[in-house]
Amino acid sequence: MTVTDELLRNNEAYAASFEHGELPLPPGKKLAVVACMDARLDVHAILGLAPGDAHVIRNAGGVVTDDEIRSLAISQRLLGTEEIILIHHTDCGMLTFTDDAFKRSIQDETGIKPEWAPESFPDLDEDIKQSIARIKASPFVPKRDAIRGFVYAVETGKLREVV
Amino acid sequence: MTVTDELLRNNEAYAASFEHGELPLPPGKKLAVVACMDARLDVHAILGLAPGDAHVIRNAGGVVTDDEIRSLAISQRLLGTEEIILIHHTDCGMLTFTDDAFKRSIQDETGIKPEWAPESFPDLDEDIKQSIARIKASPFVPKRDAIRGFVYAVETGKLREVV
Repeated sequence: MTVTDELLRNNEAYAASFEHGELPLPPGKKLAVVACMDARLDVHAILGLAPGDAHVIRNAGGVVTDDEIRSLAISQRLLGTEEIILIHHTDCGMLTFTDDAFKRSIQDETGIKPEWAPESFPDLDEDIKQSIARIKASPFVPKRDAIRGFVYAVETGKLREVV
Repeated sequence: MTVTDELLRNNEAYAASFEHGELPLPPGKKLAVVACMDARLDVHAILGLAPGDAHVIRNAGGVVTDDEIRSLAISQRLLGTEEIILIHHTDCGMLTFTDDAFKRSIQDETGIKPEWAPESFPDLDEDIKQSIARIKASPFVPKRDAIRGFVYAVETGKLREVV
């Protein structure tokens, strides 16, 4: 049995006790969260979010690239969100390599150099500020006044505000 | 008090009962999930995932663009994941507009046409297959044999396998 099969059994149990019925499409708390994909972050648990509360956007690092701008533009323009929370975290994998070395290793193995930046970063607080700056610089995200950035401590479960 | 302030109080309660201590950086179940950002999807609850189990990548639609290839490349090459689960869902916002109309509305308001595709789609199953095809076509994601795609029913909590 694969991991996927095991998780499908979990889903049967989840559906059997499914209670919240039909929730509306627009997020009830008018919030979008952008967080790292890290396995130790359960964003709903960390923030106490219930189903229906908030959009959750996640990727390697919790960085902001064109695809996060796309998601935030859809979130705000079509589904009414107004606040943004950004979450990076301690012990992040993105602190452990450089873009150049990662691209080189892929090029050496496959013969092709990725045309995208891996988006590694050496400092958590600096990259949270970078992510906020990218959102604020985008003409496609209309609500840019309520953006706050945090570092989540995987050792303690606590959020620390960066800016 | 903003929504963000309210959620920070929730985080204080989460940290106060934080129990799992230090978990390793690589996902324990060697799994990456790519799912829609939709507010009704609590991916950990739907799949019965615990902290430390899996990378969770999310965006508008749960689609696969360069940024998801970036995240999956980092997930597999640096952090050892091997399986991929893709999740789209019923009543998705991406079914309610077209790329052309969304880009036009942004251009009309801001004067700038996004240079990225909004990635709307008219059919859930077709787009799950599209996402799988994009991953399989990428030289940057090395493990492409264990990719499975599902549609989550927001009305019942159930996953239905597409392919």
